Amino acid sequence: EVSFDAKEHQHLRYNPLRDTWVLVSAHRMKRPWAGQVEKPPEEHVPRHDPHNPLCPGNTRANGEINPDYDSTFLFENDFPALQPDAPDPGSGQHPLFQSRAARGVCKVMCFHPWSDVTLPLMKKEEVVKVIDKWAELVEELGSTYPWVQIFENKGAMMGCSNPHPHCQVWASNFLPNEPALSDRCQRAFHQKHGEPLLLQYAKQEAEKKERVVVETSDWLAVVPYWATWPYQTLLLPRRHVLRINDLTAEEREGLADIMRRLLTKYDNLFEISFPYSMGWHGAPTGPHLTEDNSHWQLHAHYYPPLLRSATVKKFMVGYEMLAQEQRDLTPEQAAEKLRNLSEEHYKTRDN
Amino acid sequence: EVSFDAKEHQHLRYNPLRDTWVLVSAHRMKRPWAGQVEKPPEEHVPRHDPHNPLCPGNTRANGEINPDYDSTFLFENDFPALQPDAPDPGSGQHPLFQSRAARGVCKVMCFHPWSDVTLPLMKKEEVVKVIDKWAELVEELGSTYPWVQIFENKGAMMGCSNPHPHCQVWASNFLPNEPALSDRCQRAFHQKHGEPLLLQYAKQEAEKKERVVVETSDWLAVVPYWATWPYQTLLLPRRHVLRINDLTAEEREGLADIMRRLLTKYDNLFEISFPYSMGWHGAPTGPHLTEDNSHWQLHAHYYPPLLRSATVKKFMVGYEMLAQEQRDLTPEQAAEKLRNLSEEHYKTRDN
Ligand SMILES: O=P(O)(O)O[C@H]1O[C@H](CO)[C@@H](O)[C@H](O)[C@H]1O
Ligand SMILES: O=P(O)(O)O[C@H]1O[C@H](CO)[C@@H](O)[C@H](O)[C@H]1O
Repeated sequence: EVSFDAKEHQHLRYNPLRDTWVLVSAHRMKRPWAGQVEKPPEEHVPRHDPHNPLCPGNTRANGEINPDYDSTFLFENDFPALQPDAPDPGSGQHPLFQSRAARGVCKVMCFHPWSDVTLPLMKKEEVVKVIDKWAELVEELGSTYPWVQIFENKGAMMGCSNPHPHCQVWASNFLPNEPALSDRCQRAFHQKHGEPLLLQYAKQEAEKKERVVVETSDWLAVVPYWATWPYQTLLLPRRHVLRINDLTAEEREGLADIMRRLLTKYDNLFEISFPYSMGWHGAPTGPHLTEDNSHWQLHAHYYPPLLRSATVKKFMVGYEMLAQEQRDLTPEQAAEKLRNLSEEHYKTRDN
Repeated sequence: EVSFDAKEHQHLRYNPLRDTWVLVSAHRMKRPWAGQVEKPPEEHVPRHDPHNPLCPGNTRANGEINPDYDSTFLFENDFPALQPDAPDPGSGQHPLFQSRAARGVCKVMCFHPWSDVTLPLMKKEEVVKVIDKWAELVEELGSTYPWVQIFENKGAMMGCSNPHPHCQVWASNFLPNEPALSDRCQRAFHQKHGEPLLLQYAKQEAEKKERVVVETSDWLAVVPYWATWPYQTLLLPRRHVLRINDLTAEEREGLADIMRRLLTKYDNLFEISFPYSMGWHGAPTGPHLTEDNSHWQLHAHYYPPLLRSATVKKFMVGYEMLAQEQRDLTPEQAAEKLRNLSEEHYKTRDN
């Protein structure tokens, strides 16, 4: 009888935030790659490009001129997927042809006036300003909208069409699929175990250590036990915090610190500006502000696509789309790799 | 008061097979695209490449030599994500660190001896042979495994590392996430409405016509009301059929015919060999063969990534990964475009 070894033997792992399973087949890393090779991310971005609609002082698609901003800069998305005033498609529909009104706002937020920096290359105080703005937006838009999704698509590989450091904020009159699912899972766990799912999880991971990438006294970044993307991470506070606007000034400083450290490791992994999509999940807002949301714990998900190198990503295709997600290295292997990387950014290191 | 127009006004649509919603914001098609441009698919593939491990007579990674096959050809995946004999990770685990044994087989099936053909360019009799082989595999592997996933990743954009026409078949000792969800949804609908979900749906679509792409007396291909990918289609028989191996000889001929017509339209859309991931969903097998599965209806999903042209795809990133899928043209617009395309393949058309 061969004894079980996660690195050698395929197995399933349970994702308690989504009530799904992932197939872990670490031995697949041995297969040679003859498939598509991506263009490596652009490494030489000019600090100011007179034609880039996100730079200070430039003109955007709708004719508006950006101010000469020197910190963060927020504006309405010029091609919003959600607008505040769309008419209702009407109700009384057949169960197989159901539609619903969707209303909301889409904002873009530049992190910095320069196009050639990214979060890990910004000063800690500058990152704190980004976090403060996120908190402000959740406070403001969350006063009416049930869900405020902050997300960053980084790199052309992630569909990002502008190299200038920025994120987006989409607020909606509905609870989208993913947070709705996560809400159900966290609520059920809390009811059954009397403790918020992610608080219990953070404690366990802080003890086990094997999936921890970076930790501080207030924060924890781990490759979750159920990670689907090769170098996926989960970032969360150790204290029970419902929403990003509930973070104290000290916790925001700590967050800026751990984000810079995590993202520096990401960039150092393949010595490129690491592509990813990331976003924040916190307790729902708007009408949910008055409900009991103690089953929630604030957290961010980082979903980076790269698998083997700066140019070979993991394809979530056929089997993943039709059946179930599959990964090619164990979360513990990914965490170890990231953990052992330097916290000095390859671009600013002296050789 | 402006009246609702699906092409102009964002709205949500319900996916009854997954119990999720999609955000439809068709006005987003107006936004200019400055982002990543894909490499168009390779159009000149040699008929026989002595170094391609899928061609007849060539040697594969494990040293085996392919026979001089002249129709379909089936072999074990040389780097399988599922093997028949992996040890059990053990039970009695913490609710946040659950794992399970995963066992199965992964097979590869070549459609044709030539590398320079694809299904729409193959003869109808040749496509029937592919369908017969699919049916045989579901019969054989499904005698013990609860799920047999037939899928095709087509094109480098979809992570396919070999241009030779082929698909994969992964059978597992577990019901993967997607079919498990679809099973629950179809069962609930059947219980509530007394009719299989997809049979009722097919009837409605055949009457409404606006989302139909191709139809024959036995088959229907539609852009589903809840499609997430721009040119996603759903292909299904009109008769109540549980599994692909239940199809009659006549229905298999009809399937070969509608597949060739649908895929010809796909190729004609941007005049390239259209990339996609596709796969079959039918009633579960193995231990489920003796259960009542009358809520199931056999169907195939086609998930093609392209949005605007041969080189600009839809990115399912930030908002989609963290919150909810969003699409940029209505399913009706996509269906109309596909419906109006010629059924003569651009490669064989005389100009
Ligand atoms: O088995 P292949 O073709 O080498 O691999 C491809 O299909 C698999 C199944 O959808 C995916 O897991 C891989 O990411 C993809 O590259
Ligand atoms: O809004 P952007 O950056 O133009 O668009 C990008 O992010 C959106 C939100 O994740 C996606 O829907 C788009 O497919 C992607 O290209």
